Amino acid sequence: MGCRQSFRQCCDRPKNTNVRISLPAVCFVWQIVMIILFGIFIRYDQESDAHWAEYRTFQNISSDIENDFYFRYPSFQDVHVMIFVGFGFLMTFLKRYSFSAVGFNFLIAAFGLQWALLMQGWFQSLDPMDEKIKISMESLINADFCVASCLIAYGAVLGKLSPVQLMVMTLFGITLYAVDEFIILNLIHARDAGGSMVIHTFGAYYGLSISWMLYRPNLDQSKRLNGSVYHSDVFAMIGTLFLWMFWPSFNSAITDHGDGQHRAAINTYLALASTVLTTVAISSLSQKTGKLDMVHIQNSTLAGGVAVGTAAEFMLMPYGSLIIGFCCGIISTLGYIYITPFMEKYLKIQDTCGIHNLHAMPGVIGGIVGAVTAAAASEGVYGKAGLINTFDFTGKWKDMVPSRQGGHQAAGLCVALCFGVGGGIIVGCILRMPIWGDAPDDNCFDDELYWELPEDEESIPPILEDNNHMRNRDVTESHFSMEQSQN
Amino acid sequence: MGCRQSFRQCCDRPKNTNVRISLPAVCFVWQIVMIILFGIFIRYDQESDAHWAEYRTFQNISSDIENDFYFRYPSFQDVHVMIFVGFGFLMTFLKRYSFSAVGFNFLIAAFGLQWALLMQGWFQSLDPMDEKIKISMESLINADFCVASCLIAYGAVLGKLSPVQLMVMTLFGITLYAVDEFIILNLIHARDAGGSMVIHTFGAYYGLSISWMLYRPNLDQSKRLNGSVYHSDVFAMIGTLFLWMFWPSFNSAITDHGDGQHRAAINTYLALASTVLTTVAISSLSQKTGKLDMVHIQNSTLAGGVAVGTAAEFMLMPYGSLIIGFCCGIISTLGYIYITPFMEKYLKIQDTCGIHNLHAMPGVIGGIVGAVTAAAASEGVYGKAGLINTFDFTGKWKDMVPSRQGGHQAAGLCVALCFGVGGGIIVGCILRMPIWGDAPDDNCFDDELYWELPEDEESIPPILEDNNHMRNRDVTESHFSMEQSQN
Amino acid sequence: MGCRQSFRQCCDRPKNTNVRISLPAVCFVWQIVMIILFGIFIRYDQESDAHWAEYRTFQNISSDIENDFYFRYPSFQDVHVMIFVGFGFLMTFLKRYSFSAVGFNFLIAAFGLQWALLMQGWFQSLDPMDEKIKISMESLINADFCVASCLIAYGAVLGKLSPVQLMVMTLFGITLYAVDEFIILNLIHARDAGGSMVIHTFGAYYGLSISWMLYRPNLDQSKRLNGSVYHSDVFAMIGTLFLWMFWPSFNSAITDHGDGQHRAAINTYLALASTVLTTVAISSLSQKTGKLDMVHIQNSTLAGGVAVGTAAEFMLMPYGSLIIGFCCGIISTLGYIYITPFMEKYLKIQDTCGIHNLHAMPGVIGGIVGAVTAAAASEGVYGKAGLINTFDFTGKWKDMVPSRQGGHQAAGLCVALCFGVGGGIIVGCILRMPIWGDAPDDNCFDDELYWELPEDEESIPPILEDNNHMRNRDVTESHFSMEQSQN
Repeated sequence: MGCRQSFRQCCDRPKNTNVRISLPAVCFVWQIVMIILFGIFIRYDQESDAHWAEYRTFQNISSDIENDFYFRYPSFQDVHVMIFVGFGFLMTFLKRYSFSAVGFNFLIAAFGLQWALLMQGWFQSLDPMDEKIKISMESLINADFCVASCLIAYGAVLGKLSPVQLMVMTLFGITLYAVDEFIILNLIHARDAGGSMVIHTFGAYYGLSISWMLYRPNLDQSKRLNGSVYHSDVFAMIGTLFLWMFWPSFNSAITDHGDGQHRAAINTYLALASTVLTTVAISSLSQKTGKLDMVHIQNSTLAGGVAVGTAAEFMLMPYGSLIIGFCCGIISTLGYIYITPFMEKYLKIQDTCGIHNLHAMPGVIGGIVGAVTAAAASEGVYGKAGLINTFDFTGKWKDMVPSRQGGHQAAGLCVALCFGVGGGIIVGCILRMPIWGDAPDDNCFDDELYWELPEDEESIPPILEDNNHMRNRDVTESHFSMEQSQN
Repeated sequence: MGCRQSFRQCCDRPKNTNVRISLPAVCFVWQIVMIILFGIFIRYDQESDAHWAEYRTFQNISSDIENDFYFRYPSFQDVHVMIFVGFGFLMTFLKRYSFSAVGFNFLIAAFGLQWALLMQGWFQSLDPMDEKIKISMESLINADFCVASCLIAYGAVLGKLSPVQLMVMTLFGITLYAVDEFIILNLIHARDAGGSMVIHTFGAYYGLSISWMLYRPNLDQSKRLNGSVYHSDVFAMIGTLFLWMFWPSFNSAITDHGDGQHRAAINTYLALASTVLTTVAISSLSQKTGKLDMVHIQNSTLAGGVAVGTAAEFMLMPYGSLIIGFCCGIISTLGYIYITPFMEKYLKIQDTCGIHNLHAMPGVIGGIVGAVTAAAASEGVYGKAGLINTFDFTGKWKDMVPSRQGGHQAAGLCVALCFGVGGGIIVGCILRMPIWGDAPDDNCFDDELYWELPEDEESIPPILEDNNHMRNRDVTESHFSMEQSQN
Repeated sequence: MGCRQSFRQCCDRPKNTNVRISLPAVCFVWQIVMIILFGIFIRYDQESDAHWAEYRTFQNISSDIENDFYFRYPSFQDVHVMIFVGFGFLMTFLKRYSFSAVGFNFLIAAFGLQWALLMQGWFQSLDPMDEKIKISMESLINADFCVASCLIAYGAVLGKLSPVQLMVMTLFGITLYAVDEFIILNLIHARDAGGSMVIHTFGAYYGLSISWMLYRPNLDQSKRLNGSVYHSDVFAMIGTLFLWMFWPSFNSAITDHGDGQHRAAINTYLALASTVLTTVAISSLSQKTGKLDMVHIQNSTLAGGVAVGTAAEFMLMPYGSLIIGFCCGIISTLGYIYITPFMEKYLKIQDTCGIHNLHAMPGVIGGIVGAVTAAAASEGVYGKAGLINTFDFTGKWKDMVPSRQGGHQAAGLCVALCFGVGGGIIVGCILRMPIWGDAPDDNCFDDELYWELPEDEESIPPILEDNNHMRNRDVTESHFSMEQSQN
């Protein structure tokens, strides 16, 4: 703590938020590097290559409809909407940070998905024949998943970092994610269809650790902007709903063809439905007059989707999904009421969007549920072929048994936690350097630092109405009525 | 009427809008009941069960792509968007009821779909072997459909009921829907792919009857809030457009594989396009200076989709679809101009969203069109196999002929009407009890009763602008300081 | 120029914006004509006709999943969202023109798609057997594409035309598009999957030419309304993101089954990602303090999708897509900074949305890239079957070689340019007639001309808060300022 303190002081210099050199430089240079690396490494795989016609005949595939594109594309587009509209609009709830919420979310994701294609490709789909990465629709979905973890982390630091810092956070986040994912999925052989561990647990703890490292003791100087207004809350509901509706696609996007995708979508649909009811219940209970809090509705209603991620493709049973959703709605909402203030006050973690409640806790629960359900799997429930398909007990894992698989799942969760916390602390140190153009404590949560803002909305209606040098009728009228009442 | 009057008086006591006990209680208890019933009754069907691999081999299905998931999932997600974003945002047009519009829509739908899976399952897909309901993607679509009818009803009572009342309305609505649907589709053997009768006619008359039972003679005390503002109308257009765009998916979601889905999508697409033009025409004609009214554009443009629902899968012919849309755009817009005020004044039915014009009348038209087109069907137009497929003349209905099918369609419409009106009156009685926490007459259409509202938007720009020298966020405060400086 | 000048003067009479007769007349008459023409000409094709069951057996098609519906429907719905929500909301950025942006976009598209089905049908899919047009999902996608070109043109004249003029512009635009498309795709045999030439180049130059013909020298009298406010910019981001996310569907919607669709989606995804980074870079560079401009983020980020349109289905290679996106982000953003003001000042072209930067330039680049990549195609890269499939070297084009195909692509680009400019000038002349009810120069960009507007947002919160006894603080302020002025 002492060490962290002194490092922090050494970094606390007057802030300069001009990013005119750093931001274009980062964007240009990194994009050029991407082009070069893509030129060297990335090619189409056989299903997206023009040789598909020949490959199809060779493999005796009866119809074009069996191209993986048709299995994955609808889910891919749903995931894509979650990444850009879902995460982007979910963060527009702040009264004057909507441009940054949507805009930087857009920037992070657009860069992140390119870097993710490379990183995930190197680790998982490098063709040993020609040392190339072969991409297909599934790679694109995985890249979107990878980006999701960085967008989750963005939620914790929303309003406090400059776009350059966000790019750096994304660069390291994607890198860590790819390593983490390789260890969990390939080395440990844990299953994680919806990414409760790989995406949510990792992403949330990564963001929280960064936020801890970048703790701002005087953040309450920006308190006036750290809240919503009526319309910004409605915008945020666009994000919430698109995340909520498309979460079944998220959890089923890369599961096995056939029953795997089918079951994952059903389980997620049910878990999310159940979460909504308990979120509303706790939200209403928490207020003296039973009123609902928009923050809970916007966020906690999604917790079930996170928690069912790992186990969505398992035989969780419909009631199992409901139970998970039931618990997560309660835990997540209670988190917003009790844990977030506690964390800010005592643990020095400022979590703007409350990702600890939406992603971290449900993610860990999801990992545990996955471990337990995997350990409890039996041939009676899955069938012999079903067990092998679902848990991928093939190749060098062909002697695996469910009970051991449960242990591997638990190990995967630990790895995700370690990568999140460890990576976040290191990256947080890097981001404390006083060169990144982040906001001063009294001007956080403010679009004005990084965006040309239009004139105020206040000034429209008068202009509109007094077109022909007339007076605003509302004001005139009330003025007269007031005069009358004074008389 | 006298009886209704006295019952009404007995119920008119001072209102207490505190739902802190009732709302959490309803949410918790009902969700727990759902979990128990799901545990007892609901399982995966063979296409979402891990035994699919074995089933596939057994049934000699050549590829995973023939899993029903791939036929239904894109449509399912579109329907899902209609339910949550479409209906939710369509109702955000009120200036201070957007939280409730989107939020309670969310709550109703999340509860309703669970209850619908059970109710529809008991009536339609209870496996006689093990007394279990087997769910698949099609069940999820049907549950969403079922929920749609309750959300339509919500449109009639928007702004006047408490969330607890809405939950009760949904509980009974779903129950009635399931019985109604079973009678119409299974016993009477009417066809209703897009639910003109089952969903729209039933839902609309259910909501209108409830609104009639809950007539508020002094509702004009809340008149100031019963209208839109500029941005709330733009939000509502999000709902309109997502409903409009995805309606082809709605009407084709559960039709026959292959040509059935294909044709239903085409017919709906055309009917909706045609509706837009006549809506614009009538809306412009109705104003002295030819200006358009947002209410018409937001609602009447959708009437064609409702009216083409039943017949969408039939050989309606592209021009037939256009004609339906043409008429419904006119009728629905005229309804907003003449019938809604008439109903409020003389029939004591207060219909906040005008669902009579958007769902009730077009739904009935849809039922009639369905009956006529079914009666007119011939082997020349459909082909022998086509006729059997389209009208499902199989099993015990294998001797059915189109002309009799037309009669059955008409009977189905009558059943839907009776269930809607009858059910609505009964449920309306229940909802009149003074225990539900609904709003007083002078405070309807107001989010403040059930939501913690953020501070006003008014107060942002000053803070933003005078970042440096002004402290106070309240304009009132600055007003005082101005006075002081004047002194 | 002199001729144009005198024609212009003859047309410049006092403006009457009442469209109460013309708008309903146009909508009714044209819709009735559509119904008649649909009745005469349009029927279902074999995949959407009830005879499909027989056709399927006859053609020995193994499963319903091979109905073209399942190849095209997910992409169709994405394209549909782009047309109605994407284009519609992208144009809501103006502070008081959101109703018209979304509403007229809706009207144009709903009419345009019907007319497009007819026009494209006559030119491309008239069945010689029975002189009928047979429509399927692919026809619907093509109709949406056709409409896109008119919506692009709408961007140039946004805020300056009456709805009647827009309908006329659409009628001619669709007609020209269909001829243009027939010449380019069928006669010249150019390939244009994503429509860089056919849709974007044509549409943009069509709109720009109309805007040139309708030049308003005194448009700065409406300057106060020609800009955004905070929330209108957030609404516009909804449009931007849905266009951005679904562009891979746009470019892959009508490409070959299998690898063609797969590759087009991947290429578009990558090009768009790359564009975001260079747009941000140039936008930040262009401001003294490195702040970003929302106009660039809303528009230029999409340029990559336009430019990759023609070549998306070719073997462009992932890095090729990134390079295209890289260049277009730069060019498009620079266009907003330098070319748009230049065009307005010196070329008398007022381009409200900057479609020259978003569609015209990237469209031309896309045409050129298509020509070059087609000319460079080789059997080594594509495989023999792949080359034939991708470039459709079949039938009377079976002796075509890639190098000549490159020439044909270039010829296609020229045709698109000529049709756009020529058609736009002619239609612009027609639209200058003083009968259409367009806005006067000092009242452009104003919803009030054609819409019943709700009361001002200003007036809500006081009502809400001070229901009974407090006064509106705004009013208080204006009251004081008025008192001061009285003193």
